[in-house]
Amino acid sequence: MSNLELEQLREKVDAVNLQILSLINERASVIQDIGKLKEKQGVDRYDPLRERHMLNLLKDNNDGPLEQKTVDHIFKEIFKSALNMQEEDTRKALLV
Amino acid sequence: MSNLELEQLREKVDAVNLQILSLINERASVIQDIGKLKEKQGVDRYDPLRERHMLNLLKDNNDGPLEQKTVDHIFKEIFKSALNMQEEDTRKALLV
Repeated sequence: MSNLELEQLREKVDAVNLQILSLINERASVIQDIGKLKEKQGVDRYDPLRERHMLNLLKDNNDGPLEQKTVDHIFKEIFKSALNMQEEDTRKALLV
Repeated sequence: MSNLELEQLREKVDAVNLQILSLINERASVIQDIGKLKEKQGVDRYDPLRERHMLNLLKDNNDGPLEQKTVDHIFKEIFKSALNMQEEDTRKALLV
């Protein structure tokens, strides 16, 4: 009985993982669009004020159980990955 | 006009961020339930085979634009945060 329960909880985690995957890819796609727009405008992609705004918004909406420092840490990794992706795109474009 | 476009894209990112926040908390909550169940069963919380299974499932479902190594990296941070949260809970329980 307990193993069935464990199996069900794991299936739930798998489903949530796939939803998170879809959202981080959707986010990355919007960040690509923002990058292109900023490139046209000739402004720097990295914007520490904007990052602070996003972290504050997350803090105001975090009902747990994850602690804020953990949420901050995960999102900083997500922010970083989006910037890295853009740098990689630029590098590839320069090589063409 | 361009700034309006930037503002709209940023609002989209903010909305996606909040959805991700909600899902990583939902995930953490299920992981807490799994932890309690495993505690009752007396089995170890950390399960490398289960982690491999989750990463494989993500790989099979990753349509980009994020590269797989980036997805792996973000999820390993998410996995780690769930384990840390449980260890912290256990530590607090031991102190009571």
